[in-house]
Amino acid sequence: MDCDTLVIGAGVLGLSSAYYLKKMDPAKRVVVIDRFGGPGQGNSAKSEGGYRTLFTSEVNYLLADSTIDWFSHVEEDLGYDLKFHNIGYLWLLSDEQYTGWKDALQIIERRGTEMRTLGKEDLERIIPDLVTDFRDDDEAELLGLEQVDVGILGVKCGSIDADALVRSYEQEFTKLGGEITYNTKAEKLILKPVEELDIPGEPFVWQESHVVGAETNKGEMRAETTVVACGVWSEMLLDPLGFDSFMRPKKRQLFAFKEPRLEGLLNVKGLNKYGVLPLTILPKALILLKPELSEGSIWLGCADDLGRPFGLEEDPQAEEDYYTNNIYHALVKYFPCFEDVRPMNMWAGQYAVNSFDGIPVVVPSPGMIYVGGASGSGIMKADALGRIVAALNLGEEEAELYGGRRLKVADLGIHNRNVERESLII
Amino acid sequence: MDCDTLVIGAGVLGLSSAYYLKKMDPAKRVVVIDRFGGPGQGNSAKSEGGYRTLFTSEVNYLLADSTIDWFSHVEEDLGYDLKFHNIGYLWLLSDEQYTGWKDALQIIERRGTEMRTLGKEDLERIIPDLVTDFRDDDEAELLGLEQVDVGILGVKCGSIDADALVRSYEQEFTKLGGEITYNTKAEKLILKPVEELDIPGEPFVWQESHVVGAETNKGEMRAETTVVACGVWSEMLLDPLGFDSFMRPKKRQLFAFKEPRLEGLLNVKGLNKYGVLPLTILPKALILLKPELSEGSIWLGCADDLGRPFGLEEDPQAEEDYYTNNIYHALVKYFPCFEDVRPMNMWAGQYAVNSFDGIPVVVPSPGMIYVGGASGSGIMKADALGRIVAALNLGEEEAELYGGRRLKVADLGIHNRNVERESLII
Repeated sequence: MDCDTLVIGAGVLGLSSAYYLKKMDPAKRVVVIDRFGGPGQGNSAKSEGGYRTLFTSEVNYLLADSTIDWFSHVEEDLGYDLKFHNIGYLWLLSDEQYTGWKDALQIIERRGTEMRTLGKEDLERIIPDLVTDFRDDDEAELLGLEQVDVGILGVKCGSIDADALVRSYEQEFTKLGGEITYNTKAEKLILKPVEELDIPGEPFVWQESHVVGAETNKGEMRAETTVVACGVWSEMLLDPLGFDSFMRPKKRQLFAFKEPRLEGLLNVKGLNKYGVLPLTILPKALILLKPELSEGSIWLGCADDLGRPFGLEEDPQAEEDYYTNNIYHALVKYFPCFEDVRPMNMWAGQYAVNSFDGIPVVVPSPGMIYVGGASGSGIMKADALGRIVAALNLGEEEAELYGGRRLKVADLGIHNRNVERESLII
Repeated sequence: MDCDTLVIGAGVLGLSSAYYLKKMDPAKRVVVIDRFGGPGQGNSAKSEGGYRTLFTSEVNYLLADSTIDWFSHVEEDLGYDLKFHNIGYLWLLSDEQYTGWKDALQIIERRGTEMRTLGKEDLERIIPDLVTDFRDDDEAELLGLEQVDVGILGVKCGSIDADALVRSYEQEFTKLGGEITYNTKAEKLILKPVEELDIPGEPFVWQESHVVGAETNKGEMRAETTVVACGVWSEMLLDPLGFDSFMRPKKRQLFAFKEPRLEGLLNVKGLNKYGVLPLTILPKALILLKPELSEGSIWLGCADDLGRPFGLEEDPQAEEDYYTNNIYHALVKYFPCFEDVRPMNMWAGQYAVNSFDGIPVVVPSPGMIYVGGASGSGIMKADALGRIVAALNLGEEEAELYGGRRLKVADLGIHNRNVERESLII
């Protein structure tokens, strides 16, 4: 046995899991391996780093809300600079869309989640750069763009530096004596019979088998438990085992802008203490804008769904054309300040999309725990998910989340999965 | 528009869907295409053709029970020879496994499903070829094989000729005026904006888009609704669209035997009216045996799970070694009559495994309906699933299954999915 627990993947889910695995059982040898040269280099650090508490699913809310409290603890008590900026999330909706949101908002309101509803006039006054109405714009009408009638502002929502978060887990984990080996690629999970007979061809179908570690480019690593936490790459390890990763990889792109004419978006009063535009979601197309306070820029993303293929890409690239000849047409109608503005930077990563219910899975299998399917919200749920992995490994029925709330571990599993499908997916 | 409804896939789900689409709306032009030269040539006709009513999930029960009644109707009233043999399903269990089955059996009993419980002595008496006890067999003990303490006999269970079933739907469909074009491969679904603007690059992310047909090796085929029913191949059409197929392909193999020493299995009195062994499932390894009455042979399969990879194979092959150096070790301990018996024939197909809840999905998307994820039990649920597809296409809330029972169409969808995870998966 090379270690007690082998964690594959030094992204945010792997490192959070490793940290709690070590913290909850300090005598155990916990080793993290990652194919890249540093933490979060797969997709974690490429994330927009948004976080929110507005979810319809109770489990999603609990995962995110407790993780956000953890962010605050990490900045205030542990002294890391996570660029934790509670700028809020602002959903812009047409009246028709707002009607479709009523059930979701009722669930969220009943939970006591802080939010504000803004009317069209409020929005026009507070965000002078925003066009809410296309009555005078034949072209926008022709494009079929939705007007903006209502704004929903989520208050405990905002932005975090995903890279800094990942590094905080890395540092806390190694402080406890946890080990990380970078540039180490898991190539295959090792499946062995529980009772080895030393007959060629094992494991046979009639034997109980379990995962006992992984083959890596640096040799075999054996462990009592192997935690698979490598996001979209998980399928490369799990498919050969015939174990479902409950997710499909989908590319998502970010474009960053820094132009004097966008200054207005960094000067929006009354929606957050920073006086900037909240992370803002345009109607229908799910185009997102986020002021990045640390660099005075605006980040733009788009939650494209139907038409954007599934499939693992080794090195996904942003497509400038996707901005200039696609998103731009709509964006410039809502925010004319983007006219002729080109991105100064762009990059792409992949979401691990669980289309079934949109909620992460934490699934045990003999000798193994798989955590994944976070559907693009792994960062904002990372702390809770790491605790759930550790609790599952210790055989505990419940995990204690930051702040003391508890969650049944099996709820996020498959056999006794107990979650409601999330309605507010971005 | 080339047709009203284009059904991709002339397997059992595609043809059943096509039949009900046409039957429920005879004025519509319904066209089925398939890459192969005849019906069911993908995986349908490779199936073992087992059917059963023992399911824990109410939906699964309803789908199967009504479809089995349809089989009976097709033979008795429509005059097709489906080789519909109600030989029963016999699960052999150890006491420990039986304890694990208690909850499932209670659900099934409460539903009124006919079954019998047989003790070890009953089993030994009725099936002289079966070894229930390994007390005198050190090797079997060493292998860790489970003893047989209990048998659960499902009565409304048995075997059907999958090929004949597929052909019955084909014939009934064409009788109604439905059209089928073989050797026609759908290469790509065509996604277009609902409101076309004739601007290059459509559909844009900010447009509503819908499927309007498929590109095939014989040209484009446009339709108001495209039904994707091509089993494991569905992912080749759906992944590029970024639409989840909610299944992973997994190879399953069948081996056929015809040997004088297996005659005993074709002469088992008291478990069904045919006086043969029921479709029998060995403990734990899920090795299955099925007497194939029409050819006087025994078919053998194995529901291998962990260790059998996921992944689409164009032409999956049976592995003789999988029988001789794997299944055989256990098989011959339970049924010594298999000693030195080699398969006379073998073949392989692929299951479309939905690991999430084990239940088929019928999912709408603009311009499209996807039916799949039947997890190896598509044949025994085909009639109900075809009716659900047709009801969904007509915008009906409920589908009427054969015999008059009704099912909410949305229950099998994703957004408002309402099914219990199946516990009795083979």
